[in-house]
Amino acid sequence: MAETSTAVESRPAAAVPAGAELRVAVLGVGVMGAFHVEGLSSRVRGARVTVVNDYAADRAEQVAASVPGARVEADPLAAIDAPDVDAVLIASPGPAHDEQVRACLARQLPVLCEKPLTTDIDSAYRIVQAEAELGRQLIQVGFMRRFDSEYVRLRQLVVSGELGNPLMLHCTHRNAGVPATFDSEMMIRDSVVHEVDVARFLLGEEIATVQVIKGAATRRAPEGFNDPMLVIFETESGRVVTDEIFVRTGVGYEVRTELVGELGSATIGLDHNVVRTGADGRWGGEITPGFIERFGAAYDRELQHWVNAARRGTIDGPGSWDGYAAVAVCEAGVEAVRTGERVTVTMGRRP
Amino acid sequence: MAETSTAVESRPAAAVPAGAELRVAVLGVGVMGAFHVEGLSSRVRGARVTVVNDYAADRAEQVAASVPGARVEADPLAAIDAPDVDAVLIASPGPAHDEQVRACLARQLPVLCEKPLTTDIDSAYRIVQAEAELGRQLIQVGFMRRFDSEYVRLRQLVVSGELGNPLMLHCTHRNAGVPATFDSEMMIRDSVVHEVDVARFLLGEEIATVQVIKGAATRRAPEGFNDPMLVIFETESGRVVTDEIFVRTGVGYEVRTELVGELGSATIGLDHNVVRTGADGRWGGEITPGFIERFGAAYDRELQHWVNAARRGTIDGPGSWDGYAAVAVCEAGVEAVRTGERVTVTMGRRP
Amino acid sequence: MAETSTAVESRPAAAVPAGAELRVAVLGVGVMGAFHVEGLSSRVRGARVTVVNDYAADRAEQVAASVPGARVEADPLAAIDAPDVDAVLIASPGPAHDEQVRACLARQLPVLCEKPLTTDIDSAYRIVQAEAELGRQLIQVGFMRRFDSEYVRLRQLVVSGELGNPLMLHCTHRNAGVPATFDSEMMIRDSVVHEVDVARFLLGEEIATVQVIKGAATRRAPEGFNDPMLVIFETESGRVVTDEIFVRTGVGYEVRTELVGELGSATIGLDHNVVRTGADGRWGGEITPGFIERFGAAYDRELQHWVNAARRGTIDGPGSWDGYAAVAVCEAGVEAVRTGERVTVTMGRRP
Amino acid sequence: MAETSTAVESRPAAAVPAGAELRVAVLGVGVMGAFHVEGLSSRVRGARVTVVNDYAADRAEQVAASVPGARVEADPLAAIDAPDVDAVLIASPGPAHDEQVRACLARQLPVLCEKPLTTDIDSAYRIVQAEAELGRQLIQVGFMRRFDSEYVRLRQLVVSGELGNPLMLHCTHRNAGVPATFDSEMMIRDSVVHEVDVARFLLGEEIATVQVIKGAATRRAPEGFNDPMLVIFETESGRVVTDEIFVRTGVGYEVRTELVGELGSATIGLDHNVVRTGADGRWGGEITPGFIERFGAAYDRELQHWVNAARRGTIDGPGSWDGYAAVAVCEAGVEAVRTGERVTVTMGRRP
Repeated sequence: MAETSTAVESRPAAAVPAGAELRVAVLGVGVMGAFHVEGLSSRVRGARVTVVNDYAADRAEQVAASVPGARVEADPLAAIDAPDVDAVLIASPGPAHDEQVRACLARQLPVLCEKPLTTDIDSAYRIVQAEAELGRQLIQVGFMRRFDSEYVRLRQLVVSGELGNPLMLHCTHRNAGVPATFDSEMMIRDSVVHEVDVARFLLGEEIATVQVIKGAATRRAPEGFNDPMLVIFETESGRVVTDEIFVRTGVGYEVRTELVGELGSATIGLDHNVVRTGADGRWGGEITPGFIERFGAAYDRELQHWVNAARRGTIDGPGSWDGYAAVAVCEAGVEAVRTGERVTVTMGRRP
Repeated sequence: MAETSTAVESRPAAAVPAGAELRVAVLGVGVMGAFHVEGLSSRVRGARVTVVNDYAADRAEQVAASVPGARVEADPLAAIDAPDVDAVLIASPGPAHDEQVRACLARQLPVLCEKPLTTDIDSAYRIVQAEAELGRQLIQVGFMRRFDSEYVRLRQLVVSGELGNPLMLHCTHRNAGVPATFDSEMMIRDSVVHEVDVARFLLGEEIATVQVIKGAATRRAPEGFNDPMLVIFETESGRVVTDEIFVRTGVGYEVRTELVGELGSATIGLDHNVVRTGADGRWGGEITPGFIERFGAAYDRELQHWVNAARRGTIDGPGSWDGYAAVAVCEAGVEAVRTGERVTVTMGRRP
Repeated sequence: MAETSTAVESRPAAAVPAGAELRVAVLGVGVMGAFHVEGLSSRVRGARVTVVNDYAADRAEQVAASVPGARVEADPLAAIDAPDVDAVLIASPGPAHDEQVRACLARQLPVLCEKPLTTDIDSAYRIVQAEAELGRQLIQVGFMRRFDSEYVRLRQLVVSGELGNPLMLHCTHRNAGVPATFDSEMMIRDSVVHEVDVARFLLGEEIATVQVIKGAATRRAPEGFNDPMLVIFETESGRVVTDEIFVRTGVGYEVRTELVGELGSATIGLDHNVVRTGADGRWGGEITPGFIERFGAAYDRELQHWVNAARRGTIDGPGSWDGYAAVAVCEAGVEAVRTGERVTVTMGRRP
Repeated sequence: MAETSTAVESRPAAAVPAGAELRVAVLGVGVMGAFHVEGLSSRVRGARVTVVNDYAADRAEQVAASVPGARVEADPLAAIDAPDVDAVLIASPGPAHDEQVRACLARQLPVLCEKPLTTDIDSAYRIVQAEAELGRQLIQVGFMRRFDSEYVRLRQLVVSGELGNPLMLHCTHRNAGVPATFDSEMMIRDSVVHEVDVARFLLGEEIATVQVIKGAATRRAPEGFNDPMLVIFETESGRVVTDEIFVRTGVGYEVRTELVGELGSATIGLDHNVVRTGADGRWGGEITPGFIERFGAAYDRELQHWVNAARRGTIDGPGSWDGYAAVAVCEAGVEAVRTGERVTVTMGRRP
């Protein structure tokens, strides 16, 4: 930690001088990372991408070429250490997160880390601890639904008390399709993880148990895969959360959430603002085709909040504890898929 | 009128003894008449069809054969005069209505007359006068929307004052298709006539002027036909009613009504109770294919109200004045189509 | 059974001569029975109430007085045996059903029995067997949702294959309020029982297991009551059914059902046909206040189907096996409430 | 024009060097201008406000103080001439627009001018001509609905041909309330003007005639004011556009548009993505309270498009001709209010 301390001394808490743009290294420029590069470069104010890294060199080159002033850095740790980097956006594959996030902490750089924080519960907890020892929040985790106007409205309805005590939460999470290799474990870690954070965000407490009920599978799923599944969370205070996860509907991207309170209920994600009729004798609208169409604005808002906060050397959104809690619940969820039993979520003490 | 008086004497005001069923002659058994025969025979309580009449003998035979105890009578006036007839349902072509309704009045039989009451304003007014001289309401006109639960709810919202003073009314009336001969005049007399009655029912006053704006026509319409058209009514107190009439949409049967009041607005006809998604990536529902699907229950309710009232020798629904007013407005509407001008509706004094 | 046999011989299979009305004894005229008496007397064709029975003599008198030609019979078995009774509608309290239904079977009278068929699984099975020995279906059970146009539509979507194989079913069942004594067991037997039948009707197979998850309770519920609860069924083929049962929402009567198929999903019960805006700055509609407003038309359609069938000496709707299956599932459901475990449903062989 | 020529020479067509931010002078910082200042400073990329002008000195000071690096310039023409200004955003009162826009043209500065372009048809046409003589598009007019995702989607449905030939357009434009002085002429010039542009945008042609029907007025309107009104446009090709304009509903901001095509219809502005139930027994959502909530994102998107284009010395949105056409139609609309007649729109030749 000696070197880290040195680094800390050489770098003020608020990383960016007034008027200057936040210089961002983006690690991993697959679909999500490239989308963020574009957001930082054209839709968000106050930052610019200076360094691009990807294990696929040609992809890194291609993305860097699209951004004036950006260069490629082949080694992610070198990118983090680069003198023209004030903050880091991690969109690399999950297994790379642990080392990359810790390197950012070592340099005390603000970081926006796409989920998962790390791929196992122990490393995630160690990161929580390391950040706590620094005494500053530097890690923001990419749960972008917290920036979606509809989830924000739902949270307001909870906080304001208009719906009374929230008793149940019903989530629907459907994708038109996924790669053939997307198995039950990935359904938990990549898809259900969003509802894990949504439930924690809306209800304001931790998830205590997970149960998964595997029903009849769609023929679209490979033999032996469970799709759809019903995931049931119970929270510390005994609230019940259901999540239908169905990733091969052939229909579209349907993400709906109904919160049932003591005084009323509210549903978001209805996608009902444009309605038309047609010669097929039907009325209705188009289902959002994918997550960028549905949550694109939330991603940009997430970026803008993060950039604004990172310029002050902090975060403005879900932090490392939220990332850790999601890893812990997903860990239990994966075991619940395997055993068919209700599994208790085990979490460390919050520092 | 002497004969009529005799008839009156020979027949008590309440035509049907307690416990007995109302014996109905149905004149005209095309789509509408046959639907009513079926309703009187299987969905409505307290009546049965005893006599069937139609200018097409085979159609009359076919319908009568489907009803136990019903017989054919080739002459509509003989049907009205038959000793086993307590009430008459007129679903014959419009030009036959005048003579048939007057024959019913002469025998003082309760009558349910499909619109139009008659095909010209003078004969319609003479019927209003003749009924007024009898001193009893015997003529109910088949404006079945008044029995539709949604229009009833809308009327309640007006009457209760919840919407405040109703200022505007916007109507949409669309059919998937019509026979090739269905011209602008028929659009007024057969389609818009429903909105004429709806406007009078909801607003509780007479229509004072009619204007018709012929816009760009659909290619589905024969050369020279105006489809769609925008019809604009102004009422005696100056309220504005718009009606988009479009009868060749190729889509379905769409009948919507929005009432705009001083304190709020309300829309009915939304057809939104069943929603589904499909592999076409759309959400939504099916548009009602035709008027029986949309208003079938209202027709049956109309029949039940009429049967209950006719057993007491009276009506329970829109009367001859409502039929007359609709004829008068449609008369002006047809002229408005021809001239493109705002045409004043001319109506006689209400007896 | 000797006397019964005599009765059978003295009474033809088709109980009612052509043209005559079905004479119905109604046992139990609380809210539901009185509603049925009114339906049989004014909204349904082909039947009339001749005998009224209730353990509360004054209530029976009051209801009988409202129907011309109806009389009170103080003893339900005497009512069943009365010579002016062709069929029996049982709306008495559940514990009385077993003896009353068996008396109807003994006289081979068609019967419409409100749920539950009986209050325990053994007596219900004995009724199934007794009817099977008769070789005719005489018992129809009052699961009226099968006659609701929206459930019928949903069933059609399943049968037609438009939604593909149905994989999950999500039900919501909410009441504004219930009597203070309405406990978790009653929530299963009186409320969830409808979803039991809906699931069997829509999916066309039996329910194999039941699990109940009791979450945080509303403050409106008495201490120690579980409201809301999440009930989870798995069917023989492994489909998953969820049912949120919440009977003290203070909001209204909300009954929604979403079927998730391999090719798409469909939701009914949306209550969205009338929409309005108001000075409170909200758009929307009124939630159905109670079950009669929501399912009144289904009840009448059920009655009409039953009357038509009973005149031919048979049934047209869910039968004794459906009543038995519901009892069996509810039995398991009540145990599931007690134990918190997944409980297997035990059912006898279908005769 | 000599001075102008000089200015042109001294300033390259593409006003901003790569990498540099567009320096914007904002003229008029009332509600709209202040909102734009905030947008340019925190939500839009590539520009910053350097100069703020308002006839109310204190307001200008207050707004400038909120933006690092911005200063006040008391004279709008001096602001336009300032060396640290690359582009101008005009949000001053309408009567000031003519002189300010012409000054921008003289300096060949890109300008985003809030509607109206000018307050009379002749001055508007002279601006169109002056810009045409320059041979470059510099004037973008603030019809922000063209940047709203729903209008964009509706336009796509027209362009793609999915709805077939558009035959009618029905617009609803309602405000909860307006200042007491907001009279019929202002309803045309400030409110209906949006539907003028929407109709031109969606239908892709000019409006030929305007008619205004004044119905019963709400009691909320001052004596002699006409609120609501029905405005009817006919386009060059004979399409019909209706616009209900009602600015004192007491309800909220309701802006809906239904396009009726030969092959189907589409409606936007439904505001139905969040739905809730409550103890008032109603389901539904909140109506957008005002234009910033409804169109805030469209305003920002408009700014971003304009900034991107202005950096290249051009526009990306509705131009001076669109501003002129709107003035011409509103001129006719105001006369239509006065006369009650159908008024022909008079427009100059498009340069």
